[in-house]
Amino acid sequence: MVKLNKSLKQLSSGYLFQEVEKISLSINKKIKLINLGIGDINKPISKFFITHICKAAKTLQYEKTKRGYCNSQGENNLRRIIKKYCYKNLNISEDEIFISSGTKRDISSIQELFSKDAKIAICDPSYPVYLDSNIIAGRKNISLLKCLEKNNFLPLIPKKSYDLIYLCSPNNPTGVAFTKKELKKWVDYALKNKSVILFDGAYESFITDKNIIRSIYEIEKAKKVAIEFRSFSKMAGFTSLRLSYLIIPKSLKIENYSLSNLWKRLLDTKFGSVSYPIQQGGLAVYSKEGRAEVKKLISYYMTNASILRKGLEKLNFKTFGGKNSPYIWCKTLNNLSSWDFFNLILKNTNIITIPGRGFGKCGENFIRFSAFANITDIKLALKRLKKFLKNSF
Amino acid sequence: MVKLNKSLKQLSSGYLFQEVEKISLSINKKIKLINLGIGDINKPISKFFITHICKAAKTLQYEKTKRGYCNSQGENNLRRIIKKYCYKNLNISEDEIFISSGTKRDISSIQELFSKDAKIAICDPSYPVYLDSNIIAGRKNISLLKCLEKNNFLPLIPKKSYDLIYLCSPNNPTGVAFTKKELKKWVDYALKNKSVILFDGAYESFITDKNIIRSIYEIEKAKKVAIEFRSFSKMAGFTSLRLSYLIIPKSLKIENYSLSNLWKRLLDTKFGSVSYPIQQGGLAVYSKEGRAEVKKLISYYMTNASILRKGLEKLNFKTFGGKNSPYIWCKTLNNLSSWDFFNLILKNTNIITIPGRGFGKCGENFIRFSAFANITDIKLALKRLKKFLKNSF
Repeated sequence: MVKLNKSLKQLSSGYLFQEVEKISLSINKKIKLINLGIGDINKPISKFFITHICKAAKTLQYEKTKRGYCNSQGENNLRRIIKKYCYKNLNISEDEIFISSGTKRDISSIQELFSKDAKIAICDPSYPVYLDSNIIAGRKNISLLKCLEKNNFLPLIPKKSYDLIYLCSPNNPTGVAFTKKELKKWVDYALKNKSVILFDGAYESFITDKNIIRSIYEIEKAKKVAIEFRSFSKMAGFTSLRLSYLIIPKSLKIENYSLSNLWKRLLDTKFGSVSYPIQQGGLAVYSKEGRAEVKKLISYYMTNASILRKGLEKLNFKTFGGKNSPYIWCKTLNNLSSWDFFNLILKNTNIITIPGRGFGKCGENFIRFSAFANITDIKLALKRLKKFLKNSF
Repeated sequence: MVKLNKSLKQLSSGYLFQEVEKISLSINKKIKLINLGIGDINKPISKFFITHICKAAKTLQYEKTKRGYCNSQGENNLRRIIKKYCYKNLNISEDEIFISSGTKRDISSIQELFSKDAKIAICDPSYPVYLDSNIIAGRKNISLLKCLEKNNFLPLIPKKSYDLIYLCSPNNPTGVAFTKKELKKWVDYALKNKSVILFDGAYESFITDKNIIRSIYEIEKAKKVAIEFRSFSKMAGFTSLRLSYLIIPKSLKIENYSLSNLWKRLLDTKFGSVSYPIQQGGLAVYSKEGRAEVKKLISYYMTNASILRKGLEKLNFKTFGGKNSPYIWCKTLNNLSSWDFFNLILKNTNIITIPGRGFGKCGENFIRFSAFANITDIKLALKRLKKFLKNSF
């Protein structure tokens, strides 16, 4: 008699963002819902990228330019241009870049490379996928690194030795980010403990501050201990297209096995390649015109983030993030719980946020605002909040 | 100190099709290589499908029709049309259909639903992904069901009870397929043993014989025990685009948990959605014009398969398959091993095949020919084989 993977029973019943959506749909629709919750893009995709996707798709209809299965590691031209524009002075080769269809997939699958008893450290609060994917895999050795307000929501270097450490910078949900100095401590820790850092850089393109690190490989020797993840979703608005990449340096070896070779073997067996036209859309992102489009897009969202953050602060909210990240991490009022405050805001102002508790216990008493919205909505949201707070707090 | 997933060390060094490609690339290039190996499509993608993909992509560039993250289960319109055209009289609902980006991903991930000690039965020979994905997951309870020439390469109903049974029909690599009567025995077995059948129907559209079953759900009560996988790769030539789907019936429950609900939870957490324009390309496949394109494409490959099969038989090869499948399973001559015969053919005729041994021990002394090639190449290959066999055997 077949039995279930019993780890699945340990998962919360629904995925956080779907749960929030479900609750939000049950709300009075007479007043327009403003979604400052899920980190989904708000602008259409640049026509320039779409044109390139269509151009690439059209090549598939001709005998001379048809294609079959693509390289499971990703198209050479895309890996080449990522190397050139993102890792120019960091000595990362095309061989170390793996194209795929979403950081969610990459970051939830990467643990398959490591032994079942690996001691795993995950920040609390953090993106729920890190924890959930390890639960699904039946891993038991999972510890949470508390990220507290008094430490600016950055995890402290633990005394204990961990094998795998998930770090996200600029962070989702708190919006705070590592400086080079702070992240170097983690690289040193990993070198000392022979651990691997899984560095989620999905929000790298939102960094404005020069002290904030963009790639973990800016730190010497990080190539011996770190895997880096990046996404086209937020940077180029590709959430509906699915494109991402990760870096596994050749010098990252365990028990004399090259992790990049093993990952290639996993890709060949389990994942296959990424849709060819979408990869060519990714290529366009790094052209001169494409980079200008990205700059415009990021600037739009970061202006929103700034207005939203300042607006919230004016309403006496204590906020974090929003400077190198599209997320603003915001303390609830009157010490209300995350879910209570989320519900209160939703019911009284028709604004959707994300309860910080959904990202972990240390997210309690916080909510996350996302700046992926249009500026009119953000201004309207601030007005509604002002009115509501005046009357009720 | 971090350690490797030790199961990875048990994998063969390279994925079968990549290994074959590597050897083939080392061959004398003066004579044109004819690839009758990997099951990759040979025709360009229909202009009709590409037009629809581009049309959908273009909607993403406008404010009014922009989209963000899609439903992780797949677009409603695509699931609706699959229901209508593929499961019309089989009472499968849209809720039971899950769109994804390749059967390889689906079939390698589906085991995550089940307990680690599940007793798994995999046909020998079979598509390497079934075995490899279970090895990677660290599963130990894996048995191989011998599929022998004397039984027309179909597995016999085992006396032992298995929890998960991988069945593929029309089969890759042998090209043979289950009749309804034969498959019903497996459904009865699964009902009796409370097992789940993972039914790989990636080659369903190549079925020409009316006695051969297209969907396992044509069998009464199969909805209580079977998950079915299908692909757009071969049917519509989408190997470079990545599109597939699977069916998890609502009535398939384990320990009172609905597997379809749990799969949705896994999709939300680990996989995300499939590229929107590609899904809309899939929608076009089921339009009237699209179905005509598919018919033309399948007919082309099946004509190839017939010519190839008859040609091989004329050269005194003993063949299987090729009637409801694009694959022809062919006994080596002089009892040569698969790899020896593969190398002999490759070196002397510059024709790439796949050694049957790569699909399992019971594939020894066979090679697989694929009809995914153009007819000129197939005719040329037969000529080269004729000349070579005349001189050497």
